[in-house]
Amino acid sequence: MKNETGLIHIYTGDGKGKTTSAIGLAVRALGHGYKVCYTSFHKRPEKYGYKEIQGLEKLGAKVICYAKGHPHLDKSLNTDDIKKECEEGLKSLLDIMAEGYFDMLIMDEILISVRDNFLIEEELIGFIKHKPKQLELVLTGRGATHAVIELADYTTEMKKIKHPYDHGITSREGIEY
Amino acid sequence: MKNETGLIHIYTGDGKGKTTSAIGLAVRALGHGYKVCYTSFHKRPEKYGYKEIQGLEKLGAKVICYAKGHPHLDKSLNTDDIKKECEEGLKSLLDIMAEGYFDMLIMDEILISVRDNFLIEEELIGFIKHKPKQLELVLTGRGATHAVIELADYTTEMKKIKHPYDHGITSREGIEY
Repeated sequence: MKNETGLIHIYTGDGKGKTTSAIGLAVRALGHGYKVCYTSFHKRPEKYGYKEIQGLEKLGAKVICYAKGHPHLDKSLNTDDIKKECEEGLKSLLDIMAEGYFDMLIMDEILISVRDNFLIEEELIGFIKHKPKQLELVLTGRGATHAVIELADYTTEMKKIKHPYDHGITSREGIEY
Repeated sequence: MKNETGLIHIYTGDGKGKTTSAIGLAVRALGHGYKVCYTSFHKRPEKYGYKEIQGLEKLGAKVICYAKGHPHLDKSLNTDDIKKECEEGLKSLLDIMAEGYFDMLIMDEILISVRDNFLIEEELIGFIKHKPKQLELVLTGRGATHAVIELADYTTEMKKIKHPYDHGITSREGIEY
């Protein structure tokens, strides 16, 4: 274990930089010999972020994608299925936490799972309360709730001041995803 | 060149996630085959960020550190020397931009150079105006000025909601640097 006491980080808000911060944290921690588990929720790795994930794998991270997709973005997805996948993801990560192998666990977009009712807030809170003392836990996504922020040591709101989408520029491979 | 039109990003504010976002952007862009030049100002690579920089190098980024140190953190440093090093850094990056080899140029903490008067705002603005159309330019650091934000396409303020330093926890190798 790298740290005696691992902290809880939240990256939230409507600005750019939540997922990229999590990736950057992973790169830094990997560089220092941390064992890093990088997980994402609601992302289709083949569509969004596959290449950045490959970069993390090259540097030694374990990568797992849960609940692959979001019904708002893909109408063919069933809300109940995604709920089940989120719950299964949380359950599987409880086991991974209990093993105590990893020094850092990143859960990218998990806050979206709660915001969009795929997970009940209490389920995430219960999960966070099972964090082993030494583990550094990183949660990202818009709409962090007050109760989750209460449990965190770090909370950064990525606040959009200017965003090119507002001017009709659409997302570009390699930059936005 | 990966994009016909590269944009200008600013990551500013007092919260965690500016440098880590820049690193994450580099990882994503490298994964997509971008040629990435990652530069930092006022950082001592042997002290802060050497390991994360090594990660970026492993993934293929060119890394350059300018103005190694900050007189606020190291009283042995001479303000005039740091000014000169910032100016030389900007000049050298003008040449690098003009070559047109890189698809993405990251200037980590360059906004601190301006905030702390090592660079005059107009020097940075003049530099930004020389950005080749295709280049994606990423600037980080607290205290982005109005005139610099004016030139940016993206601006995210990393807003501190909660930070463990406020509770007496000091920075930890592998997480904060």
